[in-house]
Amino acid sequence: MPKFAERMQGAQRSFIREILKVTADPSVISFAGGLPNPESFPVAAIAAAAQAVLAESGAAALQYSTTEGYLPLRQWIAARYKTKKGMDVDPGDILITTGSQQALDLAAKVLINAGDPVVIEKPGYLGAIQAFSLFRPAWRSVPLLDDGPDLDALDAALAGAQLFYAVTSFQNPSGLSYSEDKRAAVAALLRRHDCFFLEDDPYGELRFAGRDLPPVYAQRPENSLLLGTFSKIAAPGFRLGWIVAQGEIMERLVIAKQAADLHTGSLDQMLVERFLRDNDFEAHVERIRTLYGGQCRAMQASIARHFPKDVHVTAPEGGMFLWATLPDGLSSLKLLKLAVEQKVAFVPGAAFHVDGSGDKTLRLNYSNADEATIEEGIRRLARCMETCRSAGGRAEAEMQHGCQD
Amino acid sequence: MPKFAERMQGAQRSFIREILKVTADPSVISFAGGLPNPESFPVAAIAAAAQAVLAESGAAALQYSTTEGYLPLRQWIAARYKTKKGMDVDPGDILITTGSQQALDLAAKVLINAGDPVVIEKPGYLGAIQAFSLFRPAWRSVPLLDDGPDLDALDAALAGAQLFYAVTSFQNPSGLSYSEDKRAAVAALLRRHDCFFLEDDPYGELRFAGRDLPPVYAQRPENSLLLGTFSKIAAPGFRLGWIVAQGEIMERLVIAKQAADLHTGSLDQMLVERFLRDNDFEAHVERIRTLYGGQCRAMQASIARHFPKDVHVTAPEGGMFLWATLPDGLSSLKLLKLAVEQKVAFVPGAAFHVDGSGDKTLRLNYSNADEATIEEGIRRLARCMETCRSAGGRAEAEMQHGCQD
Repeated sequence: MPKFAERMQGAQRSFIREILKVTADPSVISFAGGLPNPESFPVAAIAAAAQAVLAESGAAALQYSTTEGYLPLRQWIAARYKTKKGMDVDPGDILITTGSQQALDLAAKVLINAGDPVVIEKPGYLGAIQAFSLFRPAWRSVPLLDDGPDLDALDAALAGAQLFYAVTSFQNPSGLSYSEDKRAAVAALLRRHDCFFLEDDPYGELRFAGRDLPPVYAQRPENSLLLGTFSKIAAPGFRLGWIVAQGEIMERLVIAKQAADLHTGSLDQMLVERFLRDNDFEAHVERIRTLYGGQCRAMQASIARHFPKDVHVTAPEGGMFLWATLPDGLSSLKLLKLAVEQKVAFVPGAAFHVDGSGDKTLRLNYSNADEATIEEGIRRLARCMETCRSAGGRAEAEMQHGCQD
Repeated sequence: MPKFAERMQGAQRSFIREILKVTADPSVISFAGGLPNPESFPVAAIAAAAQAVLAESGAAALQYSTTEGYLPLRQWIAARYKTKKGMDVDPGDILITTGSQQALDLAAKVLINAGDPVVIEKPGYLGAIQAFSLFRPAWRSVPLLDDGPDLDALDAALAGAQLFYAVTSFQNPSGLSYSEDKRAAVAALLRRHDCFFLEDDPYGELRFAGRDLPPVYAQRPENSLLLGTFSKIAAPGFRLGWIVAQGEIMERLVIAKQAADLHTGSLDQMLVERFLRDNDFEAHVERIRTLYGGQCRAMQASIARHFPKDVHVTAPEGGMFLWATLPDGLSSLKLLKLAVEQKVAFVPGAAFHVDGSGDKTLRLNYSNADEATIEEGIRRLARCMETCRSAGGRAEAEMQHGCQD
């Protein structure tokens, strides 16, 4: 058999997607996914938009369209940046992508040579690790603190780096956000080091506490790319995301996009634009914020009731995830084995680390379960932690089923 | 400014897409595109399918879904291969892609290292040239004769090659198809040379003359990939294509697909599956065949009436394209300049050649214009050919506007 391309060596299926297969069993309470709550999907409004678009512009909605994307949709995005973040974005500097996962692939194609130093947060977003890894970067990771990256570590990592990738608001997996001061400091570091900057902002609209902050991109647009998506504010099934970038970067992204899939679905773009135009978007997104804020507080309350006190958990102001750090001696991978037996699932933190560390950490998603389910799942998980901790203290002769390899 | 990735050096926007911008002027008769005729789009049936899917399965249609694709759609494709081509394809060996352009990108990611010899037909499909070129192959090209590739040239080109890419039925750009004998001979060569084989079949359903033939893939599935698309039999605006491949190849394609865009649009997949299930597909596709057969014959008749007799034009049995070869001394690039002034457009053949040749050739699309428009466009184009020919005979002092650079 002929050999596959070298970039596929060591490439693996997403660990999360493999866990999700286990959790297809409806008796398993899953905090493993990253799914928006389907309660938030505007199904009837989408159906109405589909009828309107197909009745009024059926041929255009079903035909090939431009690589750059549907102009009225790009204009909506630009206007939203103005209203929401006070940013002036030219619709011509927006490229519609097939979900923001494609934006990561296109950025990697345009920016990363094999061996290029690429900086990512620790923990970092798994989808970016996967997309970039196919282009074989030399990974560097920078610890993420409660208010953003460790600046000394970032300064050191940026020396000679090609690209810094960051999720600056309600990060996946940690739920953490960059403070206003950290945003300014990161922009200053980036200006000094002159490397590409890719700011991923899938959750920016989902703030349920604290005060809105503009992306770092607003302070350092040159050599930078800003990513957004409709997955969390309309629905992920459309696969609609976007990249904001200027000049030569955008020129090359368009070339890469042509080669990748010609353009993003015409009907999907027109349908979402119509949905946004015909409905009260602000009220819609406020319902999602209220929903997720309630679910987050429910999970935090359950955790306060049930988790061992030496488990540290982040306190997000938005988004979809909590991040837990276990006390010494506990492994999230071993915990998962027992947890799945006990019908509760999460994602072990090692998946979000490019340096092999992270085994004491885990990601908990709260957006896709109601409060009663959250309480029951957290209770089960807390019991598993206690079981693993006591198993860890025992002699090997008394090996406990589940927590050991 | 930091440097872009080396793979972007020399990468250019699609020449065709740039021509299409010129032809946005409605007074230009364009044979340049590769657009299906919007008359063939089942707009009302798609609208009905959208209502049914959103009413019955709204949450699933708007949620994230599996990377491999919607199983009922993959089952439909497998059943169609059985009915139409007598092939046994396991739905598990089908990956839904975001158009078949994405299939080309995924295949290139999985199969091509920089410098790997990759064999393509001469002329060859521009979308594949673009997708593969980003992965920097060493191109080899094999002349395409009226019944398929030159077998001696193919035998020589396959020695040590990593991949052979071919469009075996109603090829883009030439309209040519592999005969039954050539299919068997190509399969035998591929078995002997043991390289990957990527068979692209976007037009296979669009046969309006002659007898259906199974793809080469049916005779040599090992180390092979077969591509298909709904763009020409439902609508391109959905961006729905697929790859048939087995075992380790499929395993790696799924990994690459996860990194590329997680999965193809859920609503698009469910909507097209519903359209196929609720309607008479055979009757639908027969209408498209009849439409394109009539348009092809109309263009052939216009060409017979108007073109200079020493312009050679292919005689396709299906698909969307005719391919013309100009007599010595004429350049299609120079012809295009004059043609655009005279409000008619086509794609110069050089775009479909990886070796810099092809300047005497050009591609004519007949699927997206009615018979009267075809007649007028071909008449204009014939006049441009005569003008260029007489200009070519003159002294430089009498330079004719248009045909010269």
